[in-house]
Amino acid sequence: MKKQQLGACVTFFPQPTTLIATRSVEGEVNLMMASWVGIVSKTPPTIAVSLNRDRHTYANIKASGTFSVNVVPSRMAEAADACGLASGKKVDKQKLTALQVSSGTLEGVSLVDESPLNVECRYVSEVELGDYRLVLGEIVEIHACEEAFNEEGKADVKVFDPLVYLGGMREYWSLGEKEANAYSAGLALLNKD
Amino acid sequence: MKKQQLGACVTFFPQPTTLIATRSVEGEVNLMMASWVGIVSKTPPTIAVSLNRDRHTYANIKASGTFSVNVVPSRMAEAADACGLASGKKVDKQKLTALQVSSGTLEGVSLVDESPLNVECRYVSEVELGDYRLVLGEIVEIHACEEAFNEEGKADVKVFDPLVYLGGMREYWSLGEKEANAYSAGLALLNKD
Repeated sequence: MKKQQLGACVTFFPQPTTLIATRSVEGEVNLMMASWVGIVSKTPPTIAVSLNRDRHTYANIKASGTFSVNVVPSRMAEAADACGLASGKKVDKQKLTALQVSSGTLEGVSLVDESPLNVECRYVSEVELGDYRLVLGEIVEIHACEEAFNEEGKADVKVFDPLVYLGGMREYWSLGEKEANAYSAGLALLNKD
Repeated sequence: MKKQQLGACVTFFPQPTTLIATRSVEGEVNLMMASWVGIVSKTPPTIAVSLNRDRHTYANIKASGTFSVNVVPSRMAEAADACGLASGKKVDKQKLTALQVSSGTLEGVSLVDESPLNVECRYVSEVELGDYRLVLGEIVEIHACEEAFNEEGKADVKVFDPLVYLGGMREYWSLGEKEANAYSAGLALLNKD
């Protein structure tokens, strides 16, 4: 496959589309769009969020010691994008988007109701990376849309309908078709060997 | 939306599907499937990969100081899954999958030819997280499928066709439809305010 060089940049995909919900010392909820988010350990369950040190969300996490990562469904693309464009220092993004929040398990944590998957976290530590801070949070509880699960506990991904972010391309996409089962599709190749 | 609690686990999506390409001291190429991968800084461009400290890939990165992150297209779902199931300590995964590699810009870096986006990295540091190591790599160069770009330099996401991993659901999905443009779709909501 013929390639062209893009240089040393941050073009990478697919990425998750999430809203990071935090609370200020005054108790105001803030929502920040984030795609630089991912699982980084199972021992204990840990999620990492990278954000600019000047973000209102960063100050809120430092002050409260908690945050939640809320997976954005396709239908919320416009609201999520607005939460990426506006600063919580100037705009009340919960009011702007009319998104509702509920309390989590931890004191002071807000979970976005319309999100099909809420990851509730306790701040653990951070890594300084230039203007960015990689915040590591221990996952305390995960709240998942009940409607997505059938009687056997098997989940239907289409009910979660997670929005995919294409970093560098600056586009949001929905999921298409299931291509394969993980920990399974590769067995045919391995057994052929 | 009614929720059910999944406990403190690592269910999270959507995630990227990538192959981490490394070389051993003996020069053998290894390919590891990884979805715990993401951009963590722009200053300088940095990518993070979390992997178990027992992985062959981890030893290779430590020894060579370099690695590449190769985005997996939909058609490579089976090969990628096989690279997640087998250990590089026992199986020659390049031979198993018949994937071709080319040299990168850095000495000793291998890029998967069939991947539409190769992120070439230099090891910078790591964070210890239980049994896992969060490896931070400075992005030195990004190689993108030339065919995806039109004459104006605008890329067609469908040509990249990146495979999405649904962590916790253990499923691979293709992309469906473009839902919105980022840094744009939210303007309508902001201007209405």
